[in-house]
Amino acid sequence: MTKKQIKSKEELEFFGKKLVDQVDKGKNPEIKFTLRNLSNIVFDKKSETLKLGDKTGSRSFFNVAHSKKFLQTVEVASIIKKELLESGKHEHLRGIFYMSKRTIPGTNVNIVDDQIESDKSIEDLEVITGLSREQMHVSANKMGSMIGNVILEDSGDTIDCSKLGKGGYSIPSITDELEFKKIKAKYVLYMEKASTFERLAEDKFWDKNDAIIITSQGQTTRGIRRLLQRISEEENLPIYVLVDNDPWGYYIYSVIKYGSIALAFASERLTIPNVKFIGISCDDIIKYDLKRQLIKFTDQDRTRLKQITDYEWFRNNKDWQRQFKMMKYNDSKVEIQALSSKGISFISDIYLVNKIKNKEFLD
Amino acid sequence: MTKKQIKSKEELEFFGKKLVDQVDKGKNPEIKFTLRNLSNIVFDKKSETLKLGDKTGSRSFFNVAHSKKFLQTVEVASIIKKELLESGKHEHLRGIFYMSKRTIPGTNVNIVDDQIESDKSIEDLEVITGLSREQMHVSANKMGSMIGNVILEDSGDTIDCSKLGKGGYSIPSITDELEFKKIKAKYVLYMEKASTFERLAEDKFWDKNDAIIITSQGQTTRGIRRLLQRISEEENLPIYVLVDNDPWGYYIYSVIKYGSIALAFASERLTIPNVKFIGISCDDIIKYDLKRQLIKFTDQDRTRLKQITDYEWFRNNKDWQRQFKMMKYNDSKVEIQALSSKGISFISDIYLVNKIKNKEFLD
Repeated sequence: MTKKQIKSKEELEFFGKKLVDQVDKGKNPEIKFTLRNLSNIVFDKKSETLKLGDKTGSRSFFNVAHSKKFLQTVEVASIIKKELLESGKHEHLRGIFYMSKRTIPGTNVNIVDDQIESDKSIEDLEVITGLSREQMHVSANKMGSMIGNVILEDSGDTIDCSKLGKGGYSIPSITDELEFKKIKAKYVLYMEKASTFERLAEDKFWDKNDAIIITSQGQTTRGIRRLLQRISEEENLPIYVLVDNDPWGYYIYSVIKYGSIALAFASERLTIPNVKFIGISCDDIIKYDLKRQLIKFTDQDRTRLKQITDYEWFRNNKDWQRQFKMMKYNDSKVEIQALSSKGISFISDIYLVNKIKNKEFLD
Repeated sequence: MTKKQIKSKEELEFFGKKLVDQVDKGKNPEIKFTLRNLSNIVFDKKSETLKLGDKTGSRSFFNVAHSKKFLQTVEVASIIKKELLESGKHEHLRGIFYMSKRTIPGTNVNIVDDQIESDKSIEDLEVITGLSREQMHVSANKMGSMIGNVILEDSGDTIDCSKLGKGGYSIPSITDELEFKKIKAKYVLYMEKASTFERLAEDKFWDKNDAIIITSQGQTTRGIRRLLQRISEEENLPIYVLVDNDPWGYYIYSVIKYGSIALAFASERLTIPNVKFIGISCDDIIKYDLKRQLIKFTDQDRTRLKQITDYEWFRNNKDWQRQFKMMKYNDSKVEIQALSSKGISFISDIYLVNKIKNKEFLD
């Protein structure tokens, strides 16, 4: 076992021992933890992230309303300790569900019936123990690719991400265990679209501009958020986010910077306060004459824009409010790929180079 | 330009020259091609694939109903020749749409208004010229990962897919241009789920069993189908498909083997007649006692199963009809991840090893 595994295992054992102690003392076993529900999610002005507040709850074994969830949490903790940490293996959320889906001995009652139950138990354990899901060896989506002057170690292999053709390195679901051996770059460019990534890979944009390029497809996975955060913190590199000019693209940036309600309890390990938005901005539409490429908003787009405009962290930000106002006026969106209308490599040769040279970022 | 690019360029030039010839002779320019609509899609018993029939159609310039599509086809051909093949660059379907979305000079009419129009033009050109979309440098989804004893060349880089940790090689959207330098494996295992891929990667299944493991997420992309077909044909390796025990999983296998209606015109370049289905079969549910892991069918599942049962290529296949009958009886599905309930590495150590040793395949 690695030191990290031992630490995680000890945290889970400590959780278990406290329960055994209570039993030994003839008490009703009780688990205390910070509440994760909406009423306890706050926007912390100091760290500028979504976080959990101070409200705590407890779950006790001899309480009809609590006992099943209590059991689920203990069962999942036991699976994580025995099957994952002690073997050094990792398992996906869906696999943990199947591993915990067994009957309570002597009954016909399942410990869990639905994945949401084991998922919630894992989140409980994150809050109770302070361990991240990744530290407990529980993974989720494998998604995304990376190319750039990054030499990393993954499971004993030394991988040079500048020598992987146009395909690149396939990012694993858990990126906490990757070790950066050497990084030579001025910044990281993260984009929501794999097609943009392929354009930049073919143009060797990363090589010409000393950049690391990373993509997922749509919403950023937890693994990629951790990867970006680690490069930002450990290597002190700026992270630029390239998304569509629409509320959905802007929200991708918002989650990377400020966190999300669903993962507010994990903000510290996932958010990147100094990440910057590189485009597509509403100013770009004018500057690069993309008006002909506008796509009319749907009602869904309009509702989403309204929601984002009202977010606490955007509400008093003049630059962002200006963007939202322009977007509302346009009542339309522009996709990253619209830049192709200006020339196949316009994005690599002109757009991104200018943006970075002139520091045209939104913060 | 590479030889391949020159050949593709010549094909497109030939297409253009024929039109110019007609104009020079004072004729109404006309494009003839095999029809791609449903009435001309047949299941070819000899090749056992979905193919286009003999029906042809034509499109002429001086025909009000044809002229716009005629123009679109010529415009897209011109973009592909000038912007892609002559520069050696590649562009995604969405990018081609934006590149062709301009007004007809002197009018307010757009050449294309919607991506479906440029997409259809590209399909037209595939049928007219005999070139694949990939040969015309047009790409679509980048998806999936590969690990195994494969040394390949991608854009000048030599990549050893056995030394890429647990992440692996990120498969590009176009795999036609990859060059296999050395492959040392007994078979390829293709799976629909990236989580299964991560399990096998962590267990070094590929190393212990001399296998190449490949995954996408859900439906198989054209790039991965080409990759599998090339390994099958060029390296003469068996391809095994691992999917969920449900109509959707079975359909993934069906497409890889027999083709699909949407891409019937490209079957020759995509289907793999000797691919084998490794699981999850309905027999596995009994053999490996997965009954507790069954998930009840929805109405959608039932309808889909009925459709697949009636497919021409399955209709007289006793083994498959037996599967469909059992599945209908179960009225439930089993996911690959359900194998985790038997132990975290049960799939790597027992299930797949047994299946391959005993040649428990469906054909």
